Amino acid sequence: MTIEPQDPDWESRVREAFEAQAMMRTLGMTIASLEPGRVELRVPFDERLCQQDGFLHAGAALTAMDTACGFAAHSLMPVGARVLTVEMKANLLAPATGTLRVVGTVTRSGRTLSVCAGDAYLEDDDRHVATSLATMIRATA
Amino acid sequence: MTIEPQDPDWESRVREAFEAQAMMRTLGMTIASLEPGRVELRVPFDERLCQQDGFLHAGAALTAMDTACGFAAHSLMPVGARVLTVEMKANLLAPATGTLRVVGTVTRSGRTLSVCAGDAYLEDDDRHVATSLATMIRATA
Amino acid sequence: MTIEPQDPDWESRVREAFEAQAMMRTLGMTIASLEPGRVELRVPFDERLCQQDGFLHAGAALTAMDTACGFAAHSLMPVGARVLTVEMKANLLAPATGTLRVVGTVTRSGRTLSVCAGDAYLEDDDRHVATSLATMIRATA
Amino acid sequence: MTIEPQDPDWESRVREAFEAQAMMRTLGMTIASLEPGRVELRVPFDERLCQQDGFLHAGAALTAMDTACGFAAHSLMPVGARVLTVEMKANLLAPATGTLRVVGTVTRSGRTLSVCAGDAYLEDDDRHVATSLATMIRATA
Repeated sequence: MTIEPQDPDWESRVREAFEAQAMMRTLGMTIASLEPGRVELRVPFDERLCQQDGFLHAGAALTAMDTACGFAAHSLMPVGARVLTVEMKANLLAPATGTLRVVGTVTRSGRTLSVCAGDAYLEDDDRHVATSLATMIRATA
Repeated sequence: MTIEPQDPDWESRVREAFEAQAMMRTLGMTIASLEPGRVELRVPFDERLCQQDGFLHAGAALTAMDTACGFAAHSLMPVGARVLTVEMKANLLAPATGTLRVVGTVTRSGRTLSVCAGDAYLEDDDRHVATSLATMIRATA
Repeated sequence: MTIEPQDPDWESRVREAFEAQAMMRTLGMTIASLEPGRVELRVPFDERLCQQDGFLHAGAALTAMDTACGFAAHSLMPVGARVLTVEMKANLLAPATGTLRVVGTVTRSGRTLSVCAGDAYLEDDDRHVATSLATMIRATA
Repeated sequence: MTIEPQDPDWESRVREAFEAQAMMRTLGMTIASLEPGRVELRVPFDERLCQQDGFLHAGAALTAMDTACGFAAHSLMPVGARVLTVEMKANLLAPATGTLRVVGTVTRSGRTLSVCAGDAYLEDDDRHVATSLATMIRATA
């Protein structure tokens, strides 16, 4: 599927919005790569984000998948659009024992709603640690 | 439904496990109240946890609901049990414009799996900002 | 929460739309009660709807919860609105060994999206056999 | 990913269990193809399964995706194992205006739990009409 962005400046728009998310700085998450309809984040392993067994807290993967999906949807929207999460559902497949690579891709980009898939992998060995489906809504500023 | 905890020391066990979650400290989340099968967390509004519109990031509510549900399930388990999130699904109902009260309750406590409901409300006016369903699995240490 | 329907004829509108769903006749599902924002269906136990262990197929509860949620959302919409399911998520809590009572209620009724909770109970002993969350969208005819 | 079935007779076991699901006959669903960890069903368009707009009822896709996922999980299990749906979540992407091809694949096959992805496509033009994630549990007979 070739996806044509509606806004030629989609990339700078997505990067700016990402920079404006204080939560991303707090959790140390960064953009690894951007394509129209696909966003990859990096979630460095960090003891501050762990649960009691020494794995990354489920919330870290949930937050990163939600964010990757939101910006994947955002990348395909026209100038001035904002994106809000309607809902998301995630399955955790394996403990997050290291740095994560988190990919959000747009499954269906509609006028109002976008459906996205999010997946988290261990950077080291590509182990699939979480998979998710999310619905995003376009809100005008 | 009256729920009888299997471990008389369930409360200290849950508090210890919560204290051992570095993620909770990083995000400033605290336990507001504990009952067998019901955990209430407090998520103070904090600019560090916001997205670009100045609301708490969806990931904050997701993380808090996941944690409240996990410990609600944990509170009903026997000594030595650990809890892992199998999956969770959340609907975001309204922007999280302030401090949150997040409640996790056990809907069904099985031998292996527990199903929990999580809800987030604004502390100020009780506005319902998120609702969720999660499946937790009991793992032995 | 008192919910005021926007269409005074909401009840006849919901009943007509329900009658127009051939799937409901095929599966033998009927309306048990209607209130604004709350729909209760009855799913008579029927061997034709069973899986290989003699329980009602998960699809029967899924279908009934989806329908109850859709009409609960529909009951609060203005004249001429149609409802489509955006997504739904269900947890199956116990085998459906008999006739079901399935309740859909509106958690949040927005201009475009409604979030609904669906639950299925055994008619005999009120055992909670399934719980769900769904997002419905209003489409104009 | 090459998936090795644990039971050399997995295929006949899956076909027998499918035949024993009266619900599949009631809805006219059939097996289109079977591989270890992947099940494809066919859902012929049928007015008896429609909602009021003349599309297949969401419940038809939900039921077929649940079934395809359940048998995909089943195909990888040892002799004597049964499969029950723990939960499923589906996004409906487009109206089901014709016969469906429904694919269930195993994302992760664990000892107790399996996570599966389900997708529904229009047979005519391969349009993606629904996508889902489900958790299945292995129960011993």
